Amino acid sequence: MSFSPLIEKLMESLRVLPGVGPKTAQRMAMHLLERDRDGGRRLAAVLEDALERVGYCRRCRTLTEDEVCALCESTRRDDGLLCVVESPADQLAIEEAGGYRGRYFVLHGHLSPLDGIGPEDLGLDALESRVAEEGVEEVILATNPTVEGEATAHYIAAQLTAHGVRLSRLAYGVPMGGELEYVDGGTLSRAFNGRLPFRGD
Amino acid sequence: MSFSPLIEKLMESLRVLPGVGPKTAQRMAMHLLERDRDGGRRLAAVLEDALERVGYCRRCRTLTEDEVCALCESTRRDDGLLCVVESPADQLAIEEAGGYRGRYFVLHGHLSPLDGIGPEDLGLDALESRVAEEGVEEVILATNPTVEGEATAHYIAAQLTAHGVRLSRLAYGVPMGGELEYVDGGTLSRAFNGRLPFRGD
Ligand SMILES: [Zn+2]
Ligand SMILES: [Zn+2]
Repeated sequence: MSFSPLIEKLMESLRVLPGVGPKTAQRMAMHLLERDRDGGRRLAAVLEDALERVGYCRRCRTLTEDEVCALCESTRRDDGLLCVVESPADQLAIEEAGGYRGRYFVLHGHLSPLDGIGPEDLGLDALESRVAEEGVEEVILATNPTVEGEATAHYIAAQLTAHGVRLSRLAYGVPMGGELEYVDGGTLSRAFNGRLPFRGD
Repeated sequence: MSFSPLIEKLMESLRVLPGVGPKTAQRMAMHLLERDRDGGRRLAAVLEDALERVGYCRRCRTLTEDEVCALCESTRRDDGLLCVVESPADQLAIEEAGGYRGRYFVLHGHLSPLDGIGPEDLGLDALESRVAEEGVEEVILATNPTVEGEATAHYIAAQLTAHGVRLSRLAYGVPMGGELEYVDGGTLSRAFNGRLPFRGD
């Protein structure tokens, strides 16, 4: 015996969520069906809406349902500074650390030839145009301190070096091999202040 | 800075899921938006469908999208035995333990006057009619071994005693204060075999 086909299908669908195994999926399905149908209906509707409407900001490529995100729209940020991150979660972590007042560019990943992820998937053409045309003075390469993040930073540095822009990389206050998203604000903040000139060779 | 309003709304909606705090909700939202939009859309559709169509089996009140569930439809179960459980998850745990070949009745909770949950919410009228009219010989009161589960078992026993049915309760192989759903199959199986006559006083 198992649950009915539709309940089994619901439990299977819940397993697309990261960290959700069979037992957790069962607990979630039972909770929604037995105790919180309104919350479940709201989740289904919001999820559908978000997947339909959330896309990339036309300027910085962060996730947003607007054509241009609030941070790009803001007039209180320094256009001369551009921070390149792998993900919207990294961007949020830097914002929450405080202290940085420039703009962002979001790659949504890193170069990964084996997975078929090349420069065009990361929007590197748009990044280059922006640097060439909009008076950016410094590009902070804040990709993850991992092998892939380093390789991506080097690639971007080589691409941008012809445009005479200053390149920097976060100081290694951040733990090697880790993910920016999970670094505490104080460490991130110090890493920002201690950022170093970057040689893309 | 935070994420866009719609992404924030998605993270908040995900927190209806049990065990999901702010950080996990963020990780889930980012995963769906960045890496598995198809899985997310499927989840939204299945969730909506399940919440719309899954109701109670007309006979045993377990969760099902059919009018009568597969177990009630089966001709290979013993109509003389009726096992009363608090939840569909408890029912599944007993089925997975194996050995029991009778029918079920699902309460969806236990008596809880403080929360306004009375006999009618647990379908106890329907349970009594079924025992009175359908040749049930033994009712196994498999409510949780908690204070509330015990009180509910006593209430049902008092209600059914006039119908001359045999009443039993699972042997205390099950750990006191625990939840049936999380008991291992072997223990559950032994508890079934060692079930004791129940006096509802
Ligand atoms: Zn933007
Ligand atoms: Zn049924």
